Amino acid sequence: MAGNTFGQLFRVTTWGESHGHAIGGVIDGCPAGISLSIDDIQVDLDRRRPGQSIITTPRKELDKIKILSGVFEGKTTGTPISLAIKNQDQRSQDYAKLKTSYRKGHADEVYDLKYGFRDHRGGGRASARETAVRVAAGAVAKKILPKKTKVIAYTKQIQDLVVAIPKFNQIEQNPVRAADNKVAAEMVTLIKQAMRAKDSVGGIIEIVIKNCPVGLGEPVFDKLKADLAKGLLSIPAVVGFEYGAGFDVVAMYGSEHNDIEVGMYGGISDGKDITMRVAVKPTSSIKINGRHDPCLLPRAVPVCEAMVNLVLIDFYLRNKIVRSK
Amino acid sequence: MAGNTFGQLFRVTTWGESHGHAIGGVIDGCPAGISLSIDDIQVDLDRRRPGQSIITTPRKELDKIKILSGVFEGKTTGTPISLAIKNQDQRSQDYAKLKTSYRKGHADEVYDLKYGFRDHRGGGRASARETAVRVAAGAVAKKILPKKTKVIAYTKQIQDLVVAIPKFNQIEQNPVRAADNKVAAEMVTLIKQAMRAKDSVGGIIEIVIKNCPVGLGEPVFDKLKADLAKGLLSIPAVVGFEYGAGFDVVAMYGSEHNDIEVGMYGGISDGKDITMRVAVKPTSSIKINGRHDPCLLPRAVPVCEAMVNLVLIDFYLRNKIVRSK
Amino acid sequence: MAGNTFGQLFRVTTWGESHGHAIGGVIDGCPAGISLSIDDIQVDLDRRRPGQSIITTPRKELDKIKILSGVFEGKTTGTPISLAIKNQDQRSQDYAKLKTSYRKGHADEVYDLKYGFRDHRGGGRASARETAVRVAAGAVAKKILPKKTKVIAYTKQIQDLVVAIPKFNQIEQNPVRAADNKVAAEMVTLIKQAMRAKDSVGGIIEIVIKNCPVGLGEPVFDKLKADLAKGLLSIPAVVGFEYGAGFDVVAMYGSEHNDIEVGMYGGISDGKDITMRVAVKPTSSIKINGRHDPCLLPRAVPVCEAMVNLVLIDFYLRNKIVRSK
Amino acid sequence: MAGNTFGQLFRVTTWGESHGHAIGGVIDGCPAGISLSIDDIQVDLDRRRPGQSIITTPRKELDKIKILSGVFEGKTTGTPISLAIKNQDQRSQDYAKLKTSYRKGHADEVYDLKYGFRDHRGGGRASARETAVRVAAGAVAKKILPKKTKVIAYTKQIQDLVVAIPKFNQIEQNPVRAADNKVAAEMVTLIKQAMRAKDSVGGIIEIVIKNCPVGLGEPVFDKLKADLAKGLLSIPAVVGFEYGAGFDVVAMYGSEHNDIEVGMYGGISDGKDITMRVAVKPTSSIKINGRHDPCLLPRAVPVCEAMVNLVLIDFYLRNKIVRSK
Repeated sequence: MAGNTFGQLFRVTTWGESHGHAIGGVIDGCPAGISLSIDDIQVDLDRRRPGQSIITTPRKELDKIKILSGVFEGKTTGTPISLAIKNQDQRSQDYAKLKTSYRKGHADEVYDLKYGFRDHRGGGRASARETAVRVAAGAVAKKILPKKTKVIAYTKQIQDLVVAIPKFNQIEQNPVRAADNKVAAEMVTLIKQAMRAKDSVGGIIEIVIKNCPVGLGEPVFDKLKADLAKGLLSIPAVVGFEYGAGFDVVAMYGSEHNDIEVGMYGGISDGKDITMRVAVKPTSSIKINGRHDPCLLPRAVPVCEAMVNLVLIDFYLRNKIVRSK
Repeated sequence: MAGNTFGQLFRVTTWGESHGHAIGGVIDGCPAGISLSIDDIQVDLDRRRPGQSIITTPRKELDKIKILSGVFEGKTTGTPISLAIKNQDQRSQDYAKLKTSYRKGHADEVYDLKYGFRDHRGGGRASARETAVRVAAGAVAKKILPKKTKVIAYTKQIQDLVVAIPKFNQIEQNPVRAADNKVAAEMVTLIKQAMRAKDSVGGIIEIVIKNCPVGLGEPVFDKLKADLAKGLLSIPAVVGFEYGAGFDVVAMYGSEHNDIEVGMYGGISDGKDITMRVAVKPTSSIKINGRHDPCLLPRAVPVCEAMVNLVLIDFYLRNKIVRSK
Repeated sequence: MAGNTFGQLFRVTTWGESHGHAIGGVIDGCPAGISLSIDDIQVDLDRRRPGQSIITTPRKELDKIKILSGVFEGKTTGTPISLAIKNQDQRSQDYAKLKTSYRKGHADEVYDLKYGFRDHRGGGRASARETAVRVAAGAVAKKILPKKTKVIAYTKQIQDLVVAIPKFNQIEQNPVRAADNKVAAEMVTLIKQAMRAKDSVGGIIEIVIKNCPVGLGEPVFDKLKADLAKGLLSIPAVVGFEYGAGFDVVAMYGSEHNDIEVGMYGGISDGKDITMRVAVKPTSSIKINGRHDPCLLPRAVPVCEAMVNLVLIDFYLRNKIVRSK
Repeated sequence: MAGNTFGQLFRVTTWGESHGHAIGGVIDGCPAGISLSIDDIQVDLDRRRPGQSIITTPRKELDKIKILSGVFEGKTTGTPISLAIKNQDQRSQDYAKLKTSYRKGHADEVYDLKYGFRDHRGGGRASARETAVRVAAGAVAKKILPKKTKVIAYTKQIQDLVVAIPKFNQIEQNPVRAADNKVAAEMVTLIKQAMRAKDSVGGIIEIVIKNCPVGLGEPVFDKLKADLAKGLLSIPAVVGFEYGAGFDVVAMYGSEHNDIEVGMYGGISDGKDITMRVAVKPTSSIKINGRHDPCLLPRAVPVCEAMVNLVLIDFYLRNKIVRSK
């Protein structure tokens, strides 16, 4: 009930604070017989880790993943997969003054209000560091989903810089993870300006599910769209979600909207591609010191992908038992 | 796992198809000793029921609620509350032709794809009729929440007609449930035009939580914002969710955004008001016959309120056990 | 959390008090495409209903089941199956004096202690009447399990009258549901003596799972044996559970015990038959009036079968997702 | 669903195989503000660890616990508590031959049947080693329960050696954990004889809950007795459970049984002591090598206590939300 578990059948429970020994998680419900290696996971963690480019935080965390259980001779055994990542660059001393003061735009105060006291050394569980474990779990989920199913996220917009027509192959070619190298270059310039001003920027990430399996999602409360929204809004800094035409429906007539393919009806996938967008607020940790990301989007991209993969895998497994034969 | 239950501690399970004998639900986890009457529930159901105004479907459903268990001498007993509403105006014959054809923008096809066959007489569980039970359950939730906590939803925008400054006392004074009678009148005109053209319109509903209790939401996956998003996206026709500045963050700097009160940090409420908006798509059932709502928003308003109340009550109860004393 | 739901994938939620309008339940997670009729359920309810023989309570409840949703043209649709049974022979007046006094051996007092007040008209949710819904749900479960899998329960022992070698075909031929008509006749005599003395007797029910599917149960907490124990101990009046050699292991050496087939290892079924026994205490409601069962076992037999079928169906569905292919 | 989590509000998820790097677990839902140290946990782990006396396995595992998260400055923070214990004495080579053969009375074969393959190096998740984490979690649970509530288990019977009147202060004074040093001495002799014969013995453990809080347990499926049965039957080698008069009810009349205090009615605790017994089968691993316990009971005693504490803490927290005030 304390909300550190995601999923019903493919259950990911994460643990760890940004300033403890380590962070980690347990996946319960991964089917047996899936081939799984460290590399399968590390590649996505490397896309999320700090210090990867000029426009991310300079904090140094190698984020090397360890698999402590659940895999034998390169295959999952059907038992819990325990994952752990050591914390390295903690610098608790930076946070000593936070013992008695709250940071603006942060969860510091609400933690005190809720629990009566808190680990003041950092964001605690509210720290975005926790999302590393989600990325690791999402990488495991990908191994189980059909090969043709792909979740692709990219930076769509920062201020008035918009990727109009995404070029998916360019996403990993630029530090913003925009799906257009040209727009990305302009975004880098804008982000650097914000950095110099000790300020930050937000933006929009678009996520596409290519070749989504048919029939994912349950009719009433656990609609696919509902759990996608939940999964994505559970990411720190995400403040909005939409799919298909999203908020643009406000200007549409039904006769017009019915012609748009959105990939889900009644909360269930129909096999067509699904396109979503999330709004990511500007980093709150500004004017504190130089150790924050001036723009969260580049590193949030793999986190969004992970959450969508976690939503998909859960419904994928749930869908195996809806018919009598 | 089949997704007909909402909530962890205050668990609402709904059942029933639009064309069966009845629809209903069971609330498990309602605390004992809450005073509860039929009237407490019926008042909200009446705001959702069809046929209530010139701009809603003319289908006649009185939607009279029955409480079958869990209440004794006017108080909840702590045991399951069973709720039921008879179906009256079913007209299955209207749907006979749907046995072999699928309606555009509807869940008909995905049900067949998922389950191998379906009850072709209507939307089945995808029918918005199911939301009546949510409204009933939300009315029970309201009785448990602190009296000062109020969830207020209203029609904010249809096409370019926007309620700029909401007047909450006017919401129930017009058939659109807009928080401004003047704007509402224009909206009615617009909706009637769509009706005549056998078309439909969408829009935006804004939901405000006044005096939200402090500390609601859990730090990681079950953030308050995440479950609000899930609850609201589980409503048919909702295609987007945002809170605070929402998608407008794309144009903001951190220095600017940090000054906005959003009511939640780290996924936990801080006691300030929370403002959200959802995008509602235009009705899909157009050009079929005259028995659809040309605009879903007026009747979706109480459903949005109910889902938010259901999210709040669950976290409210969960919050009672987070401290040792 | 209030504990009115059983199962993880095949979820049964029951509601209703012995003295309300009705009792009922909702099955969420029943696969689509199962043929299901009223008769499939009624046959087992008739084995549990009061007034069926000289040695059961004379209370008159026909216990006619209604299916309110989830079945269309004789087949399950994959949506929630809502079941209801009207209460008929309530006689609340018999219980008027119970408003201020507690019955010995009953839950009256603990309900007050737990909830602060109670519905004093009867056993409330503690009433064995609630088990009718379990029997109904168990009947649905049976339709999904492989045809060769059979759960058979029978009265094994009352005082020193023991069925040594069960004759399964005789179980329904005598009012005690003993698997031996001769022993049953002696049991009837014994029970009638207890009735005349305004007293009651307990006993042992044995339950056999014939042709249990292989692989049911999960390795650690949700072992098959653990959930069977839980399911059976959740029945009112059951005070003990054992399987295989059970408490007789106290006298055995490992060399001896290893040769016994028990049907489960590491909490997982191996496909061999599983034999369990439960201890049922004597009826607590004695010397009150003539409306109690002098011996609970005959009517508890179908309840035990139902709970075992509910345990099996849940693991049967869970087992469909443990392998990658 | 894979069953590695116990509890609804105080959720313990365990991971790890007997022959992997480590075993561990995550507690989600521990209230904030509980004082907790390594010592609180280690004391119980030492009672369970192998090699502690002449009559336990000589395997050497120090079972030193590490707390990786969720505790700050000696207090729980309300966030997940991650626990880990390194595996030391693995000797996988002993198990090489098990790659192609199954051990009698073990879960080896059913794992292959269920998952399609298995980690053949030991019992995998079926290994009793997994119970160390339960003991650790149980130690945390104890810190939250009221101080006067005590769960005490002891070896009650091995073959015909019975502790008639338990002397609780003697339990930790003898290697069998019998509540009578005299009987314990005889039990040691008997166990040594079995060891020499490369055989094993079973027995009965009695567990007493002293000063159980009032109102624990939920009325229908999650009765206190039901979850106690589940928790205890989830322990490897436990094959039976009873409380109060247990299987002796078979010989009792209601007039006689009603006078016994059993501590639970309608599945809810009434505040009186609760006495239970579990049957523990003789160790299956006989005649293999000298590395098994000839009698599982001495080390199972703290595991039984832990499982009962885990059941109690969950209901204790659940009970905080059943009343409106």
